[in-house]
This record gives sequence, C-alpha cells and structure tokens, in this order.
Amino acid sequence: MRLSSTNFASGELLVELRRDASVPLYRQLEIGIRDRIRQGLLRTGTVMPATRALAADLGLSRGVVVEAYQQLVAEGYLVSWTGGYTQVAPTVASSPVAQQKTAAGGPPRIDFRYSKPDVSRFPRAAWLRSIRKVLNETPNSSLAYLDGRGSTELREALADYLNRVRGTSARPENMLICSGFAQGSRLLLDVLAAAGYRRLAVEDPSDNEVREVAIKAGLETVGVPVSDTGLDVAALERSGADVVLVTAAHQFPTGAVASARTRAALIAWATAHDALIIEDDYDAEYRYDRDPIGAMQGLAPESVVYAGTASKTLAPGLRLGWLILPSRLVEPTSVAKVNDDRGSPVLDQLTFADFVARGEFDRHLRRMRPRYRQLRDTLVGRLAEQIPDLVPIGVSAGLHVMTWLPPDLTEVAVADAAAEQGVGIYGLAPYWVTKNGPGGLVFGYGGLTEPAIIEGVDLLANAIASLRRQ
Amino acid sequence: MRLSSTNFASGELLVELRRDASVPLYRQLEIGIRDRIRQGLLRTGTVMPATRALAADLGLSRGVVVEAYQQLVAEGYLVSWTGGYTQVAPTVASSPVAQQKTAAGGPPRIDFRYSKPDVSRFPRAAWLRSIRKVLNETPNSSLAYLDGRGSTELREALADYLNRVRGTSARPENMLICSGFAQGSRLLLDVLAAAGYRRLAVEDPSDNEVREVAIKAGLETVGVPVSDTGLDVAALERSGADVVLVTAAHQFPTGAVASARTRAALIAWATAHDALIIEDDYDAEYRYDRDPIGAMQGLAPESVVYAGTASKTLAPGLRLGWLILPSRLVEPTSVAKVNDDRGSPVLDQLTFADFVARGEFDRHLRRMRPRYRQLRDTLVGRLAEQIPDLVPIGVSAGLHVMTWLPPDLTEVAVADAAAEQGVGIYGLAPYWVTKNGPGGLVFGYGGLTEPAIIEGVDLLANAIASLRRQ
Repeated sequence: MRLSSTNFASGELLVELRRDASVPLYRQLEIGIRDRIRQGLLRTGTVMPATRALAADLGLSRGVVVEAYQQLVAEGYLVSWTGGYTQVAPTVASSPVAQQKTAAGGPPRIDFRYSKPDVSRFPRAAWLRSIRKVLNETPNSSLAYLDGRGSTELREALADYLNRVRGTSARPENMLICSGFAQGSRLLLDVLAAAGYRRLAVEDPSDNEVREVAIKAGLETVGVPVSDTGLDVAALERSGADVVLVTAAHQFPTGAVASARTRAALIAWATAHDALIIEDDYDAEYRYDRDPIGAMQGLAPESVVYAGTASKTLAPGLRLGWLILPSRLVEPTSVAKVNDDRGSPVLDQLTFADFVARGEFDRHLRRMRPRYRQLRDTLVGRLAEQIPDLVPIGVSAGLHVMTWLPPDLTEVAVADAAAEQGVGIYGLAPYWVTKNGPGGLVFGYGGLTEPAIIEGVDLLANAIASLRRQ
Repeated sequence: MRLSSTNFASGELLVELRRDASVPLYRQLEIGIRDRIRQGLLRTGTVMPATRALAADLGLSRGVVVEAYQQLVAEGYLVSWTGGYTQVAPTVASSPVAQQKTAAGGPPRIDFRYSKPDVSRFPRAAWLRSIRKVLNETPNSSLAYLDGRGSTELREALADYLNRVRGTSARPENMLICSGFAQGSRLLLDVLAAAGYRRLAVEDPSDNEVREVAIKAGLETVGVPVSDTGLDVAALERSGADVVLVTAAHQFPTGAVASARTRAALIAWATAHDALIIEDDYDAEYRYDRDPIGAMQGLAPESVVYAGTASKTLAPGLRLGWLILPSRLVEPTSVAKVNDDRGSPVLDQLTFADFVARGEFDRHLRRMRPRYRQLRDTLVGRLAEQIPDLVPIGVSAGLHVMTWLPPDLTEVAVADAAAEQGVGIYGLAPYWVTKNGPGGLVFGYGGLTEPAIIEGVDLLANAIASLRRQ
C-alpha cells in the first residue's frame, strides 16, 4: 500500500480481506483502516478513496465500504464532508498518547451499552420484498391519513402473531400502533393520568426514562423491589399504587423472570383494586434456555396493557411499537395518538404487516436466536474465565446480562477505567428508584460481535486489575 | 353478468371498462360495482370474487381491484372479512329509500373536505427505486437510533431543495425532521412555552387544531385579522403577542397571499420585539398563476421558524414534516423530539432524501401542478356556471378555494342540504378565533377528480336551490 497525504489514485488503499472469515467484510475493512490510522500509516488529513472506487478496487459492494467509513466517522477516526469526500480526522494523531486521549474522550470502541440489537442482520432483502408488494398492491386510500390505532393490516397481522407466539389475547380492534415504546408509554401515561390514575409503581431497579415521562404526565411514581422471582407484590400492595409497570418476562435490568406465583399475585392485585398492569414485553422474543412464558395480558386482557416493539428484534430506526389495550382505553389512547402525530407512517406499517403475515418475522427471529445465544454464551464464558467475581444473572433471555459488583469496586471507578481502555460499560445507578442499591454492571451484547465481546471483557479485566493494584 | 347470492365462479362478474378513458380503471370498476349494488343486481350478502380472480378475469392488475373494493368498503357498499373475502354489505338494501339514508348517514360520496391530496398519483415506482437504493446501500449504523434532528441525508437534501425552490436560508444543522406539522408544531410550541414565550398570535380565521395545541402547551392564543394582503400587522402589534403563526404564502382558509409590505412589516415587528414568526408553508409548492413568493425565513433566519410537510405534496400517510429553526431553538427542539419518540423512522427519511436528491420530488411536483390547476379551473368554472353567487377567492395556489356565503344562507343549512345529496362541504365556523365572522365555504379539491368536482358542484347547486325554495 502506498501512502499519501493528498488524494489516492485508484488501487492505492489495499486492505487484506478474508472472504471466508466469520468476521463480516465491512468489519474487516474497518479494522484494517483503523489499524493503519493508529499506526500512522494513514496520516491526518489524508483524503480517503471514494467509496465507489474503493469498493471496485477491493471487489466489494459499495455498501460495505460505506458501512466501514461510517463506523470510523462515528468513532472519530474519519471525518466526512458535504462535498462527498472523507478525510482522516485531524484530531486523531498517530502518536500513542493522543490516541489514548481520543479513546477516553470519544465514543468507546467496544460498547456494552444496552439497547443495541445487531442491525447488521436487518433482513433487508425480505423487507424490500414486502415494501415492493405494498407499493404494488396497497390501495390509494391507505396513503391518506389513518385512524389513530394504525393500519388494519398491521393490527391484524400482529394480533395473530402475538396470540400465537406470546399467548396474548389480542383483537385487531384493541391494538394501537405507535412510534416505539417511547411514544406508546407517553401517550398511555397521559391517558391514565387524565382518567384519574394517580400513582405508578415501577420495578426497583428499572429503566429510568419512563419515570420521567410519568412525572411529566402528572403521576406519582413509587419504586417496588424486585427479586429473582419478580416484583414484590406485597410491597406493591402497600405502595398504594393504582397502576404498575412490569417487565415480567425478563426484568430490566436484573433479568429476573417473574414466577407463576408472582404473575398470579399481580393479576389478583389488579383485580382486587381495579388497578392496571402495564406489561412491557420488550425483549421476550429472545429466550434461550427455557420455554417462553406467555404474556400476562392473555390471562387478564381487561387489566393489562401489553406493550411490544420492533426496536429489539428488527431495528430501533423503524420506530414501530404496539399496545394491546383493555377495551375502555382504546378510544382515549387512539385520540391521544391522533392528536400527537395523526398516526404512524403508513408504508412502514403495511410493510411490517406483510413481513409478519408472510412469516418473515418468525424466520428472522429463528435466525437471530442462536446468534444471540452464541453471543451470550461467549460473554458469560469469557467473564467466568477473566473476571470470575462478576457473576452474570438474568441470562436466560434478552440482549443483556447483569452482574453485581464486589464491594471493593464502584460503578464509577470501573466505568472510568474501562473507558480508558476504549470499553463502554454502564452501572446500575440510573435505574434505582427509592435509594441507591448495591453496585452492578449491565452488559448489552446484542450489537456486538464475538471478537468484540472477548476483547471487551479482556480489556475490562485489565481495567479492574489496574484498579485493584492502585 | 350472472348474479348469485352465493360465491362467484371465475368470470362471473363482468364490468365494462374503457381502457382509453380519462377516468382511471379502478374508478370505472368502482362505479360499475356500485351501480350494480344500487340497482339490486348485486344482492346483500353476495360474496364478491377474490381480487386476484377478478383482476385476472378483467385483465387488470390486482391493485386496481383492491382499490375499487377498498373504496366501496369505505363507503359501506361492501364489507371485507378477515378470512379474506368481501361481501355486499347487509345494510345497503337496494331500495332507493334505504340507499338515501346511507348516503346521508355515512361518509359523503363526494367530499370537499380539505387536506386530501390526490394520493392516487403517489409516485410508487420512483419511491420504490429510492427505497431499494436505501436498502442496498445505507450503512447498518443508520438503522439504530437517530439523533433528534433526523437523518443527515434528509436534512441535507431538504436544505438544498428548500433553499433552491422556496428561497429559504436552511443549513442541515438547523433542520429538524418530524412526523408532519402535527408533531412539529406541538414540539415547537412546548419548547417556546418552556423558553418563556407567553402569547401566540394566530390568523383569524385560521386552522383550529394548532390553537388547541398551543393552549395545551400553556400559551395564550389571540386572533389577529387577515385581509387579502395578509395579516394585519398593526393589530398584531397591539395584541402583545411574542410569537405569531402565519400561512403567508397561501393563507388557510382564505387563500390570501401576504403582500411584500405585510411580510416586511412582520419581520420588522419580530426584530423590534425580539419576537418569533412561525411560517407554516403547508402548500406553497402548488402555485398556479403567479411566480412563487419566497419564504420569509430566507429574509430573517433567526426570527422565523419555517415549517413544511410532505402531506400535501406526496401523501399524508408518510408523516414527514420538517422545521428550519433559528440557532437558539435547535438544541431544545431536538431534545424534545428525542423525548417524544426517539426520532422519526429512518427508512422513510433516507428514502425521501434519495427521492429529493435525485430530483424525483421536483419531477413529481411538475407533474402534479398542471393536474391540480386543471381541478381548480374545473371547480372555479363550474361554480361560476351553477352557483354564481359563490365567488371563489384565494385561488392562486394550494389545494383549496374559499367562497363567502350570501346572507340568506347559513353554513349549517348548506352543509346539511349538501350531505343529503351525498356531498361533503364545510363551513368556516371552526376557523374563527375571536368571534364568528361571516359565513363561508371551504372547497378542498386536491383529492377529487374532475367528474366528481362537476357532479359535486351540481349537487350543491341543487341543495342550495332546494334551501331557497323552502
């Protein structure tokens, strides 16, 4: 490879790629370019070859090159300019000192942040088949404004799917399509506040964002402890809450699965107090070791709001979510949806409907389950080897595991030390509701590769070892 | 055509179609089937042929049949069942009495309701080309969660387009993509209320929905009169407002175009009072008789929020809108967007970006402009012939015209009499802010055909004549 501080001519950037390797091509290309930048072989200000030209030189599709560049832009190694050219970033000097500074200040190279599914496996070809069918066949009237619940086709397809796979009791009339759980929960909590609900109980620990939404809606929030069998229903009883939000199938962040007893007690509580359960079934499609447990909604459809999303199964960028609502909440929630944004975009809805109805969603999940299980096994195995005092819990499902921290380590110290190694790792602190609980770490693995997980755990082990030497 | 009260065998439903006619095939099929139902030739409960079979029999694409069925389902002539079959509706008896009752109670057969562009001209093939390109080329990282302003590609493409066509002064960094004006205005008004703005002036008359949103955001609203040269800026000055919402390019509903003097006075007002102008440029792409007038935003980018939408140009079901924001509002509005729904769906954004960047949006508008002008000419001409005392105003742009009502007619009486003829026509009453003004009618024509406009005006003439005979 010749190096230049000005433009490349065709054929000037050569990266060795192994076609049969398990590492995807874009990732190999990305690693190759990153290493050359780090080693000073590609200097600051160097204009990178056009994606089309480099793709032709290396015998790749252009998308592979775009993907690699984009990742390096996101990491700060490259900058892309509106004129359409890409440069080695001025801030990435090739000296080791400056490099380390960048690693600590910029986004982590290996990021265990939760909520990143593997979008590289998004079923692009199948999705295109569905949208082609929709554009060929959908009647014009579908392109006008929708009813607030969403397109009939999608509500029918999802009701069939959820009843079959999640054991819900959904009817198309009781379903509402929304822009992910973010919008769905906001609309729902607004409707509940207007309907006279006052106090929302949330799991402690649990996702913090929805609490802010609840407070904005005018609801009090109260934390109720979770154990490895799910929510403490006796504590819920004492809390005076009239609505509770649970992640019963796979608690976030602890990964606990609510026992049959907990589930029955929750429904008994709702029935006795005329209270409502919101069941956030955010990642239940990914379950690895045991049979899936049906949604609670199927047991008590008039006491449970079921919430699901395509963000964890397909891609967050789709912004597709759904609610199954008790009859009395259908009308006000649909009105709230219409007032909010006049309904979700229709082509996406019809495409997803076709995708689900043709069994592509099932096929996609069947393909992804063993892959995620493999990532989980890699993570759990490497942790056991390298950092045996971090013991993963909640491993049976989902796209993350959690570990408690030994008492000599704090979340902040571990996260800072990991960041210096280029690893993003996150503590439990934001998730505690009532008061800070014991320290712990959440490992999201869905968007990572096996080599990245292994390297990430090894670097984390180094970070922890260096902390313990101090 | 043989008739049956059970299933059709192949080839049993024959509708004569003229391939060279100006009336689209789906509409011919729809009319043919509707007439047969009305005449009692297709009886209640008759199971219609499967769309695929009928399409094959008639040599049509299936989409044409689906479209015709869907329209008849919407009108209540057919019912479609989840099993996939379609029946002649039980409520549509073939006697004229029952038929008339349906016409009066159900949705109008010819509907002049505003806000319906001609979605039958949605550029499906070009849209499919763009989404195919996106699915082939977009990097995986685009499918993950977005930044709150929307995808860079779309902000770049729209900034170029708007600067070129609307004379705006947009930079990609100052643009925000939202789910139509509904969401955009809601987020913006929330941000303004939080930033200390107190009083929103709106045009009187004007669209009523945004006033409710403003009130919910905690803003006072005050109406300021409009004349045929736009907003009365002296009255705005007296109103004590610190933000004003204007539809300067084509006022809704009067159709007035703000004069150069009004526009200069508005900007002087904003500058003098450190106040803000929201410029809702909802239909400016359709301008027929005069040169387009550039957006005010281009004159004072730090005093004007520009709002645009694809709902009127492509299809409302896309839910694509955009704001060009003064620098100080970019950050809070982006945060509000992220909190609201984590960003708009990404595939639609990237598809629209490609569609705009490749010039398809310009081509679509060039195709639609003469069509809408023709519809407008038909409407204006037929009104002059049939109801000469309804004089259209605000005809130079957009997808609607308005007429004032002679003093012997009220909006309610005209709307009721028209509804009995199967015609939907709508008064100004909801649009008055301060107090009820004179009576008037708003004619949306974008989603209608020429024959429908002619028939609609003729039926409205009958309705008015019968009112005057009473």
